[in-house]
Amino acid sequence: MNVFVIGLGLIGGSMALDIKTSNKEANIVGFDANEAHMEEAVSIGFIDRKGTLEDAKEADVVIVSIPVNVSLEVIPKVLDIVKDDTLVFDVGSTKANICTALENHPKRRNFLAAHPIAGTEFSGPKAAIRGLYTGKTNIVCEVEKTAFKLQERGFKIFNDLGMRIRYMDPKAHDKHIAYVSHLSHISSFMLGKTVIEKEKNERDIFDMAGSGFESTVRLAKSSPAMWSPIFEQNKENVIETLEEYIANLQKFKELMQQDDYNAIYKEMADTNRIKEILKGISIKTS
Amino acid sequence: MNVFVIGLGLIGGSMALDIKTSNKEANIVGFDANEAHMEEAVSIGFIDRKGTLEDAKEADVVIVSIPVNVSLEVIPKVLDIVKDDTLVFDVGSTKANICTALENHPKRRNFLAAHPIAGTEFSGPKAAIRGLYTGKTNIVCEVEKTAFKLQERGFKIFNDLGMRIRYMDPKAHDKHIAYVSHLSHISSFMLGKTVIEKEKNERDIFDMAGSGFESTVRLAKSSPAMWSPIFEQNKENVIETLEEYIANLQKFKELMQQDDYNAIYKEMADTNRIKEILKGISIKTS
Repeated sequence: MNVFVIGLGLIGGSMALDIKTSNKEANIVGFDANEAHMEEAVSIGFIDRKGTLEDAKEADVVIVSIPVNVSLEVIPKVLDIVKDDTLVFDVGSTKANICTALENHPKRRNFLAAHPIAGTEFSGPKAAIRGLYTGKTNIVCEVEKTAFKLQERGFKIFNDLGMRIRYMDPKAHDKHIAYVSHLSHISSFMLGKTVIEKEKNERDIFDMAGSGFESTVRLAKSSPAMWSPIFEQNKENVIETLEEYIANLQKFKELMQQDDYNAIYKEMADTNRIKEILKGISIKTS
Repeated sequence: MNVFVIGLGLIGGSMALDIKTSNKEANIVGFDANEAHMEEAVSIGFIDRKGTLEDAKEADVVIVSIPVNVSLEVIPKVLDIVKDDTLVFDVGSTKANICTALENHPKRRNFLAAHPIAGTEFSGPKAAIRGLYTGKTNIVCEVEKTAFKLQERGFKIFNDLGMRIRYMDPKAHDKHIAYVSHLSHISSFMLGKTVIEKEKNERDIFDMAGSGFESTVRLAKSSPAMWSPIFEQNKENVIETLEEYIANLQKFKELMQQDDYNAIYKEMADTNRIKEILKGISIKTS
């Protein structure tokens, strides 16, 4: 099986690592706009050799793991040149735009729109890790638009990676993911910003920070090159979640201003049921 | 050494566990307003027996690990009945109120105001863990107001627990801790609330949540009984941090509305330096 990976960062790199393990005969060629990343990928060993976009022509499977704005340009071009029986799948965090962009592409049936819910706050080839996808959910959109034989090929790979599949409409995907992923990133980035701004005036503040702060701002380490296009493509949904979040914070502040600590207690007690919900996540990802 | 622990939850329990290990001769009596918690503490074994507040009379060291509003009532009463050479220290997350409340207490020199920067999102005796304090910072306020001999006794305990001491004015403590701890808790609680509210209408949303969401809402599992009084006692500082946080979120939203994704990128890139800061925290807490 000839696999061609476009984008050799955390997501593409981790996928290549595990494909190499589960499929000894896989020949993996990689391309990245960043030459240094290609060198690293060869030296880490998750690709067999560096390639150019032209290598898509020889591939049985093309994995597109690049920022979602670049995908919009690259995937149509890749589909233009691949063989009739090549599977091209993406792994982007937004799904509506790419599905719309490819709606009328003559090779639409060669494309599978996917979003594996997996990652860390790190990026680049060195961030690639084995087993990243084990036990995780992979959201597949508009599955009926992909040729049946190519669906099968994709699902075999996802299955080997240990993922479970969930089918979803691209618009519903983008709406839901804004809440459980995109908003978390903004809340974390802005928390980091608020504290860093303060530190300018008050030295040593971070000496007082503990593991709770660390957990809450972890996502503020994430790559702006990856996240800025995600927010752009999911603008409407993200703004809606932000407005709800800001309104909740505003209400919390007002309750404090009114010294209504019974209501503050209740706000927190009601939200404590996140424990049960997180238990569900832990079971899923463990 | 007779140790009397008031409040047998995560903080007091974890401290008792490690004191028992480092000081075999320590006789630890515990009191908790919740009878079931006392039973659990005996059965887990971190206290030798259940007590009443009267046990403070026999103690060499009294550890007060209860919600900060209850501390304001309990600590003066405890100081009233302890021996002249008993050390009483608290571990509360706010320091200005308790220091002011005890300012003119005849036994002020028996009291040491402390805040160990350690914890988890869990609570109660069963949440107590060994080594919770190893490598963590303990903030001590108004150290000069504590009798020198009793300071020494306290520092011996903190040292045995593996903590490093940092001295701070109570007002400065409350101001800084609002940024690096109290605000994180509110951001996490309100993130949880925003997503849970949505879930009412949209089932299965949590199937899409990954480890990033889990990390960001972890603190929303925290105890309302502990946190509501902290927010009350640190009202002014917490409101200030909330206003800055809301303003930053608002600005982020406006940049999105203006389609200024270069500025969005810059906001995130600037905040990425939290990586270096968190490295500092990790070294400190590892």
